[in-house]
Amino acid sequence: MSIETLKAEVARRFGTPAVVVDLDVVERNIARVQALCDAAGIANRPHIKTHKSPVIAAMQRKAGARGITCQKLGEAEVMADAGHDDILIAYNLLGEQKIDRLGALLSRVDVAVAADNPVVVQGLPRAAKIAGRDLEVLVECDTGRKRAGVATVAEAIALAKDIAERPGLSFAGFMFYPPEKSAAETQAFLDAARAGVREAGLEPRIVSTGGTPNLVNLGKIDGVTEHRAGTSVFNDRMMLAAGVASLDDCALTVYATVVSRAEADRGILDSGSKTLTSDTGGGLDGYGLILEHPQARIARFAEEHGFLDLSACNDRPNIGDVVRIIPNHVCVVVNMVDRLVTVRSGEIVGELPVAARGHLT
Amino acid sequence: MSIETLKAEVARRFGTPAVVVDLDVVERNIARVQALCDAAGIANRPHIKTHKSPVIAAMQRKAGARGITCQKLGEAEVMADAGHDDILIAYNLLGEQKIDRLGALLSRVDVAVAADNPVVVQGLPRAAKIAGRDLEVLVECDTGRKRAGVATVAEAIALAKDIAERPGLSFAGFMFYPPEKSAAETQAFLDAARAGVREAGLEPRIVSTGGTPNLVNLGKIDGVTEHRAGTSVFNDRMMLAAGVASLDDCALTVYATVVSRAEADRGILDSGSKTLTSDTGGGLDGYGLILEHPQARIARFAEEHGFLDLSACNDRPNIGDVVRIIPNHVCVVVNMVDRLVTVRSGEIVGELPVAARGHLT
Repeated sequence: MSIETLKAEVARRFGTPAVVVDLDVVERNIARVQALCDAAGIANRPHIKTHKSPVIAAMQRKAGARGITCQKLGEAEVMADAGHDDILIAYNLLGEQKIDRLGALLSRVDVAVAADNPVVVQGLPRAAKIAGRDLEVLVECDTGRKRAGVATVAEAIALAKDIAERPGLSFAGFMFYPPEKSAAETQAFLDAARAGVREAGLEPRIVSTGGTPNLVNLGKIDGVTEHRAGTSVFNDRMMLAAGVASLDDCALTVYATVVSRAEADRGILDSGSKTLTSDTGGGLDGYGLILEHPQARIARFAEEHGFLDLSACNDRPNIGDVVRIIPNHVCVVVNMVDRLVTVRSGEIVGELPVAARGHLT
Repeated sequence: MSIETLKAEVARRFGTPAVVVDLDVVERNIARVQALCDAAGIANRPHIKTHKSPVIAAMQRKAGARGITCQKLGEAEVMADAGHDDILIAYNLLGEQKIDRLGALLSRVDVAVAADNPVVVQGLPRAAKIAGRDLEVLVECDTGRKRAGVATVAEAIALAKDIAERPGLSFAGFMFYPPEKSAAETQAFLDAARAGVREAGLEPRIVSTGGTPNLVNLGKIDGVTEHRAGTSVFNDRMMLAAGVASLDDCALTVYATVVSRAEADRGILDSGSKTLTSDTGGGLDGYGLILEHPQARIARFAEEHGFLDLSACNDRPNIGDVVRIIPNHVCVVVNMVDRLVTVRSGEIVGELPVAARGHLT
């Protein structure tokens, strides 16, 4: 089927906007990440926040992934319901409601969690008690990104000891999300933290790194045992900008229709902030790349309108044209929809529920 | 129930983040908008894109709203399924799939649509034919906002004639979304367009204006028959910044938990871009207002992390604290969740489905 026929068929069957995933590209992306991990001798634990689909998670497992990573307890519950085991929840879980649910989850699947402070650690034994088994806890460490994670080696060591001393908790290791150019800093942090916990008789069984751009750094940090990459399964405009994906590696596009052309330099897509989201992808120009009109700029949004600046275009879209957009940040776009339209070899093959979407907690 | 007790109860029952709506405030907001419309002698046709709830739409109708406005065909279908009639879809509907659905919708409820170009108008007779009744079409006109809408009076007149000449279509009038300070320009456009269509024997039965900030302008444009306001039902940080709402008028808050405090000036909320969205509300500083810590800045996001800059705070939140956030743009936040937690008189009363969410088309 030609791409024009496919676009017309998607519009006819589903209407636009439609969020379309090419499963051939997904499979290539999964295989590439697995090969990178295998070559580095590092276990692959893909982050499912990007696709929120137990089906795609199963494709990743089948390709060789050790386990999966989730950011939300609710995501982990959906994955467990679908038969997935060996789940890392890379997040500080806090509050009675979540701890009770974590206990219930731990009673049926292998699950580990991250923590970056003693308040979180203090709450976790209750989950182990509910489950009647130990809960593995990783110490999240920050080496420059200023996100979550303890800021110092001393805190990392103290938190590891705290975990090890609590009933029902087991110190599992260290979790990093290193800035792309921080291999040396991360290595120094890891070495010092590992030496510190060894003095207390503890051993980090898991040393986890994260991020799709860091796939090219696999093997640069000695002692890493597994890696968490999310975006690589679909890729997006951020990954294009970072130079870690090509257009051929982008598995997800938003199909949109041009619904207005009020002036020569202006156009409107039927995809606004409620579809593409206002995520700038860390400062990209505009809100997505239109494959058919790469010179068109998605300049601003209303909720259901994408306002196009066509002043740089030689070839301008007409009202009624269906175009494909690579979004700035694919993970937040998937999160907007209940179903992805799937294609293979240029033909529609079905729809895939974004099963873990909507699980806010 | 004290606010601290309510926050603890929401966290205990639903976990955080939770999107919480105070129905007492909603009712006050609905009554205020209706009173403003009544005082101006203008029909109230609230835009349901903000709440996407047939239940809240019913509250608006009960208070006196003439009908409702939708931005998506899928929203209108959900509202019709729930018993709502007299629906304006304020959008260019295009493509066979949507026109067929529009026809089916028109066969069961009164529905009008907007159009700003002849390609859209050309497709609409098919819907009327399917329904076996006339479809009312408004000409969308732009008077400075550079969104949808014909840019000139001549185009407005030509499009009105085009509509009137097509089988099954009825020219219903003009639709504006005037910039807040453009009453004179909009009046001039309307007067000229009305004079033009009258020469062709047409009369604009409906002249519709839109926008919550424009509620203070009701009555300034002669000939307006109805108004579409959306955000006013909940209000948000944009409306606070525009000076058209006070804190007491903000009906929706996101309850979030502080899950990390890696450094003295930093904190992390369990609400990121997948909850609060990256909408800047037209250039506001930060991604929301924390009621308990108004000096805290939600400086940036990961998908499930809200990164706080606490450097300006006298009183800093602790790990485990539950805080309430007024989002920059409430309409896009409601669109992230499947259910809103509802409270009255400071007590949880239930959950309200965001029934029209997820209807991308």
